[in-house]
Amino acid sequence: MTARATTTTRARTTTTTTTTRAAIGRRRAREPNARRRGDACVRYNTPAGVGRKADDPLGVFRLEYDISMDEAHRPKTWKPTVTVAVSGAAGQISNHLLFKIASGSVFGHDQPVVLRLLGSERSRQALEGVAMELEDCLFPLLREVDIGIDCRKVFAGADWALLIGAKPRGPGMERGDLLEMNGAIFVDQGKALNEVAKPTCKVIVVGNPCNTNALIALSHAPNLDPRNFHALTKLDENRAKCQLALKAGVFYETVSNVVIWGNHSTTQVPDFVNAKIDGKKATEVITDQDWLENDFTPAIQTRGGLLIKKWGRSSAASTAVSIADHIRNLVNPTPEGDWFSTAVLSNGNPYGIQDGIVYSFPCRSKGDGSYEIVPGLEVNDWLRERMKKSEEELTSEKGCVGHLVGEAHVDVPDAGCPVDLEDTLLPGEM
Amino acid sequence: MTARATTTTRARTTTTTTTTRAAIGRRRAREPNARRRGDACVRYNTPAGVGRKADDPLGVFRLEYDISMDEAHRPKTWKPTVTVAVSGAAGQISNHLLFKIASGSVFGHDQPVVLRLLGSERSRQALEGVAMELEDCLFPLLREVDIGIDCRKVFAGADWALLIGAKPRGPGMERGDLLEMNGAIFVDQGKALNEVAKPTCKVIVVGNPCNTNALIALSHAPNLDPRNFHALTKLDENRAKCQLALKAGVFYETVSNVVIWGNHSTTQVPDFVNAKIDGKKATEVITDQDWLENDFTPAIQTRGGLLIKKWGRSSAASTAVSIADHIRNLVNPTPEGDWFSTAVLSNGNPYGIQDGIVYSFPCRSKGDGSYEIVPGLEVNDWLRERMKKSEEELTSEKGCVGHLVGEAHVDVPDAGCPVDLEDTLLPGEM
Repeated sequence: MTARATTTTRARTTTTTTTTRAAIGRRRAREPNARRRGDACVRYNTPAGVGRKADDPLGVFRLEYDISMDEAHRPKTWKPTVTVAVSGAAGQISNHLLFKIASGSVFGHDQPVVLRLLGSERSRQALEGVAMELEDCLFPLLREVDIGIDCRKVFAGADWALLIGAKPRGPGMERGDLLEMNGAIFVDQGKALNEVAKPTCKVIVVGNPCNTNALIALSHAPNLDPRNFHALTKLDENRAKCQLALKAGVFYETVSNVVIWGNHSTTQVPDFVNAKIDGKKATEVITDQDWLENDFTPAIQTRGGLLIKKWGRSSAASTAVSIADHIRNLVNPTPEGDWFSTAVLSNGNPYGIQDGIVYSFPCRSKGDGSYEIVPGLEVNDWLRERMKKSEEELTSEKGCVGHLVGEAHVDVPDAGCPVDLEDTLLPGEM
Repeated sequence: MTARATTTTRARTTTTTTTTRAAIGRRRAREPNARRRGDACVRYNTPAGVGRKADDPLGVFRLEYDISMDEAHRPKTWKPTVTVAVSGAAGQISNHLLFKIASGSVFGHDQPVVLRLLGSERSRQALEGVAMELEDCLFPLLREVDIGIDCRKVFAGADWALLIGAKPRGPGMERGDLLEMNGAIFVDQGKALNEVAKPTCKVIVVGNPCNTNALIALSHAPNLDPRNFHALTKLDENRAKCQLALKAGVFYETVSNVVIWGNHSTTQVPDFVNAKIDGKKATEVITDQDWLENDFTPAIQTRGGLLIKKWGRSSAASTAVSIADHIRNLVNPTPEGDWFSTAVLSNGNPYGIQDGIVYSFPCRSKGDGSYEIVPGLEVNDWLRERMKKSEEELTSEKGCVGHLVGEAHVDVPDAGCPVDLEDTLLPGEM
């Protein structure tokens, strides 16, 4: 079964510093011992001329090289390779997440992956460092790494797009400015996904304001299923479970059925009404109604800010874990009777939330990457009032970026942008 | 099977900022619904008075709290909990490693763990942040987190001690000074392990100079098996495999039987003579002898320095992965015919390396945490000359810290400390 080592190919062509080759992704399979490109290939895209010395001892600064791999080594049980594009790939969150994905712990230990890393001109060197480190880890499932700064190239053929990068708020910048500035990024990335990603691509937006960024992106990607756009509220859900466990004096794994409703902002609604602890209603286990109504939500919302104070920077590791959890929620069947939180397009939801916004709902999945909103949760007056407020905020955010979703294929009324948009960004987030 | 939620206990006693309570670790098992302490317990040790306000909405600044857990929730297939102590726990390498350990990907998905994090007074806040983030991740296997700055408390009952923390070299500091300064740390940590860790504790030293630090630590821990002290050369092995794969034009998983001999320094000897690619001798696949002899080793050694240039800091993620790999090498049976690298006490080795130093050898494990040095590898003249040089360096390092290993139970000749100790720290390491 062992085949001969195949030949090495290194295309030492020059390139500019501003473009990245898209991965080739073709394979000449079936021919025994044929050289195959793209199956197992790590590419670095470096400025022309760097590392071209014949005596370069390192072997890592080549413009491009392929590591061909004999198919005999690939377990027959492996699934077809998935391509995962990640923006903000040189950042702290990605630095945790990429190694988790490459290890197989996110998509599964039978799921080979290609990682396509999107950075900026400024982060190019760091991106190269990330790719080198990924290579040094010898992850068997990591079949290819590609880096670049042009989303139209990096997103090519993506099965998943994890949009982590966003511009942080500058000094004196209003929330409206932030929406506008990041909106422009997500217009571009939405269009790029539309042009080059697979039509079945799943998109998870982490960069804030993530709900409205997701709405903008999906508005510009009519080739993709708008239901496949998500904004991350899983970290909020995890923190909510932890705080309920702490209050109840139980271990966190006994807490289930927690949903975050609405916007990933200070108007978010962590739901204790439907939450369960050890299979019982959380409100029967935690009888301190004052805590539930007045302390529980702030405990979740201020967690990020607290961590910045403690740790000196935002919570990259636990955010990365929550993104991994979000993906696992979609690629594994949801346990019977449970649900998870994800902010998705509200169209046709069973809770009376208006269509055309990206709102966090209780969802469940068959494990095929899709999901459905779980109907029938109890919405009492306390919840309804707050869910409405978050809905109104999202409508207002949408009004502020109306010109960015104007051509959207999702047609909804425009609520306009209030002059003084309240700052509802969660503390500790940018 | 579901049991009632148990009561919450929060001991709001005061403490000083310089001590940490050891985990209680007792359980009142078997009694239905009994309150159990220590089984699932996250402790934060904060300065007295902080977060004691009755209206504190966060629930995280308590001096101590327990999350009791009903045993019914604990799968019967789980192994007994292991306690893992980690020094340098607020640092970058740990920030990657701790979340991997807590997730179950290192010790196995049936292996509950307790994490005990050792930091310094300066890093106390960051340690608290790490503990909070670990909690937010809801890892089911993570049964307890404890933080502190006193190694005699943090190491209590440890099954594993991962000694990542070390002092970096200051400006103008000679290598001898570095050995001396870090030696003092490892004298103290060795003594602490001797006093409070389990006699079966496995110790992996990552802080540099790691071989000699490991020797110092084991010299002061006569209650522990000296064979259970390791210094990390797995990252070098991983990098070596990657470079061989790259040169051969094959995927890295086809490279096996790579060993790093000697010291984790510039005198290390990455072994291409015994390496295999696709089951064949690497020297038959890679016929460029000049590259093997002259370029291969520098490619590995300069990798860390390169990554610092690229990434702006040292390679935390891939180092953490290599520590995880090292642990997995010990807790899983080694594939038939293969081996891994770890620097261990040289006593009785089959390669003629003198006793009483910590030297990296090819090893294999039955998967029970122990190992044996694999005999019978080919040592040609090229290898022997370089292996000898690394041996001499380790003898020399030992001479420099002779007063720190003077009371060692491992008795070996002292080679003395040369006046001008060559700087052989790997570039990019501190």
